[in-house]
Amino acid sequence: MYLAKVYVTLKPTVNDPQGITVLGGLKSLGFDSVEEVRVGKYLEVRIAAPERSQAEAKVTEMCRELLANPVIEEFRFELEEASPRPGG
Amino acid sequence: MYLAKVYVTLKPTVNDPQGITVLGGLKSLGFDSVEEVRVGKYLEVRIAAPERSQAEAKVTEMCRELLANPVIEEFRFELEEASPRPGG
Repeated sequence: MYLAKVYVTLKPTVNDPQGITVLGGLKSLGFDSVEEVRVGKYLEVRIAAPERSQAEAKVTEMCRELLANPVIEEFRFELEEASPRPGG
Repeated sequence: MYLAKVYVTLKPTVNDPQGITVLGGLKSLGFDSVEEVRVGKYLEVRIAAPERSQAEAKVTEMCRELLANPVIEEFRFELEEASPRPGG
């Protein structure tokens, strides 16, 4: 069992309206020292695989096919060995 | 200038319909080995601060006041020194 921590972020050149909105919110709350906010996704994926290399290949495939939009987003992930989920 | 990488996740006991939907999507694409998906937010916040401790305090405050919903979410962040943003 592996736990993949997947980070999906917009490519640096892509405009991020959600980040701009959060930045505005922070400024209006008085956080004047904030300069930029970019918002991405963070996913934790539990996957059964006998070996790390297989888990890695699967997670890469998942990111390419569903978790990230390759046109505007990029992804990276960390893989760690995990115990089966509680009660699972 | 500091760059805070903020991770906002649902508390472990909170139901995650978005994660369940992604899990369903992965399964229907043939990823049978996936057992669980949980979806969170990942934010990159650039903040001007003379010292690390001040940046840390500010980011904690931001998380408490806007970035995370303390009722159902928890947050953690990493702080790294950053160069001013390109063209900024």
